[in-house]
Amino acid sequence: MSYQTQMQAARQGVVTPQMEQVLGEEKISREDLLARTASGRIAIPANRKHVNLRARGIGQGLSTKVNVNLGVSEDCCNISLELDKVRRAIELKADAIMDLSTFGATREFRRRTIDLSPVMIGTVPVYDAVARYGKDVPAISVDEFFETVKIHAEDGVDFVTIHAGLTQMAVARLRQSPRLTHVVSRGGSVLLHWMTANERENPFYEHFDRLLEICRQYDVTISLGDGLRPGSLHDATDAAQIQELIVLGELTLRAWKADVQVMIEGPGHVPLNEIAANMLLEKKLCHGAPFYVLGPLVTDVAPGYDHITSAIGGAIAGAHGADFLCYVTPAEHLRLPDMDDMKEGIVAARIAAHAADIAKGLPGAIEWDHAMSHARKELDWPRMMELAIDPEKARAYRASSQPQDEQVCTMCGDLCAVKRSRQVLEGR
Amino acid sequence: MSYQTQMQAARQGVVTPQMEQVLGEEKISREDLLARTASGRIAIPANRKHVNLRARGIGQGLSTKVNVNLGVSEDCCNISLELDKVRRAIELKADAIMDLSTFGATREFRRRTIDLSPVMIGTVPVYDAVARYGKDVPAISVDEFFETVKIHAEDGVDFVTIHAGLTQMAVARLRQSPRLTHVVSRGGSVLLHWMTANERENPFYEHFDRLLEICRQYDVTISLGDGLRPGSLHDATDAAQIQELIVLGELTLRAWKADVQVMIEGPGHVPLNEIAANMLLEKKLCHGAPFYVLGPLVTDVAPGYDHITSAIGGAIAGAHGADFLCYVTPAEHLRLPDMDDMKEGIVAARIAAHAADIAKGLPGAIEWDHAMSHARKELDWPRMMELAIDPEKARAYRASSQPQDEQVCTMCGDLCAVKRSRQVLEGR
Repeated sequence: MSYQTQMQAARQGVVTPQMEQVLGEEKISREDLLARTASGRIAIPANRKHVNLRARGIGQGLSTKVNVNLGVSEDCCNISLELDKVRRAIELKADAIMDLSTFGATREFRRRTIDLSPVMIGTVPVYDAVARYGKDVPAISVDEFFETVKIHAEDGVDFVTIHAGLTQMAVARLRQSPRLTHVVSRGGSVLLHWMTANERENPFYEHFDRLLEICRQYDVTISLGDGLRPGSLHDATDAAQIQELIVLGELTLRAWKADVQVMIEGPGHVPLNEIAANMLLEKKLCHGAPFYVLGPLVTDVAPGYDHITSAIGGAIAGAHGADFLCYVTPAEHLRLPDMDDMKEGIVAARIAAHAADIAKGLPGAIEWDHAMSHARKELDWPRMMELAIDPEKARAYRASSQPQDEQVCTMCGDLCAVKRSRQVLEGR
Repeated sequence: MSYQTQMQAARQGVVTPQMEQVLGEEKISREDLLARTASGRIAIPANRKHVNLRARGIGQGLSTKVNVNLGVSEDCCNISLELDKVRRAIELKADAIMDLSTFGATREFRRRTIDLSPVMIGTVPVYDAVARYGKDVPAISVDEFFETVKIHAEDGVDFVTIHAGLTQMAVARLRQSPRLTHVVSRGGSVLLHWMTANERENPFYEHFDRLLEICRQYDVTISLGDGLRPGSLHDATDAAQIQELIVLGELTLRAWKADVQVMIEGPGHVPLNEIAANMLLEKKLCHGAPFYVLGPLVTDVAPGYDHITSAIGGAIAGAHGADFLCYVTPAEHLRLPDMDDMKEGIVAARIAAHAADIAKGLPGAIEWDHAMSHARKELDWPRMMELAIDPEKARAYRASSQPQDEQVCTMCGDLCAVKRSRQVLEGR
């Protein structure tokens, strides 16, 4: 191969096998895919070592993607149970899985996850550095941080979250305009701790070229993390958040210069009326790089229902330009998600992504809705079940409550408006 | 009393006991409440016979309200079970309950519901006319339709849905631009059936003054129904829907002239990017009358999750001016909702309403979020549970997964960013 990364290939006009896979899944022209991958508006996270990957693209003109978080941790370190989650997440049509393992046999879990995943895999190497070296955070060396990134790249991780924009300057802004909820990013808080205790600059910022070198070699996409994302509506769109975003925009250009693919991570907790502005800011300050949002949650008061608060925010974010939604489960803010939580989270995020695709006018998106509505008008229940985003749940609901007239459902029974209006208007 | 309706009182400058109750719950000045009730921008549904009502206002400058649908039907005619739902809905902080009974002892259920409800009660008399007279729809007489409305008013119903805008002219538009899903409103389809079979105009349109007379006498608020609301994304914002809305605007002015309070009912299934325009249209064409939306659902493909699709649409609708959200449950399009479905539906709608209130800048709304986020920063778990929109579910989740360190939760465990950043930034 004459190229190291998808971006470099695109810049040479080469359509890679990974791009062919993207073309097979999306309604985008070869020319647009090449041009946007070359310019960074589309990222195709595809580590050269992730051999069984079916690549997907993230960015302008492509369907909104959904990520699932899982991993082994101190409170849940059963590898085989987490691998079941990986399998289930793929079955439920997640587009990406982030392995956020923080404890125990993290490398074994990561390798096995990559081995069985045709979907892209992301990680946060800083978590693993804490797990791997078992040291107090300030004692982790710069070399150890980079060594961890290198191992993840070697294992086949397709994208890594790196909070390189959380610089001393951003921390100064944070101290100047105190927040209600400080830093809620785990990776961000680890780096803040390290930087403060050692009185040093963020190692990923200071040695960004070292990161680029690793990422270029394996074609690992950098997901520039938002260590200062707001953790409450109160802190949304504040100086610290935007300061970090400005730096992420600068780092984006440096990465692109090295042919390294980039995504930008975004909030967080954001009032509904601030979401559009946040999307615009990212696209402007980060030069059109794909935006990967965690939420945003449109209220802080609904623990137990944050899959819903984030579906609201995610749908609006997507409609205004977000390209990639990180799922949030009902367990958010309360506990590690179990299998059921994961399913609820995936479906809610897929609903948000699809609603956004319709709003954006993505070619082909609304046809799914039209097919479902046609089945509804025909009272064609098997077809409705087939087309449902979660046929399993739809079938269970339907089966649990049999109507007297099997053409309709128990919601309206004999008063079924679909049946009556079809009779009146179509005579059948 | 020198007034028949809240609107008439407001026009006389009289602050009624019901307005005092509204003032006790909302951050609005006496002057604004009077002026907006007088002009119709706020409705206070409060039947003079509903003696145990704690009145709430719906409209400009007030918090977004949430309605719950329930009732007895052919497939679910257990009165005591439905009355349990009424009690539970009140406990879960529904602002209104619509009794949509369609079969059996509808009057007994309605009266008992009103007796035990401090929240406002709405009905759709047309459903009951079908149940009550047991006739084929076309055989119901005009007098019987109005007799049913009169009985509901007499029983103490605070607002009635009347699809008076579904005129022959609107039906002509419907036939001219065929839809994917025709008419999905039950009341709308019954009237369409009646009008087509009898070749007559909509009786509630033709004899609108007769309706006003009843509503004025008891102070029943008319919720002008959208018989032609879209039942699929495909049919959203089409000529038939907007034609009906124009007529509803004309009827609104006639009602206001008679001191009768009005709300307007709205869609339905609407793509995310069309919601704002729908809100604007209603406010313009209906002269600022409160808007009561059913959804809108932002995709058709998610049966089993329509509490989520409607929470997305409802939040956006509310942020753009909708005043009152009808809940949708996970059972929508599949079966009658059970108790669990009802709870999911209420909480989802309350989340949407609150997110909208924050977006609208409703005084006091975001303070709830700030209190929750403060508790989060303090790792004050009992307070978080207290403040949660559903403390029951939040507590169950927390209890099901005890962390090793009880200050944090199992989501992040030792990597808790809140704890770490507080230590770094506040030294505690």
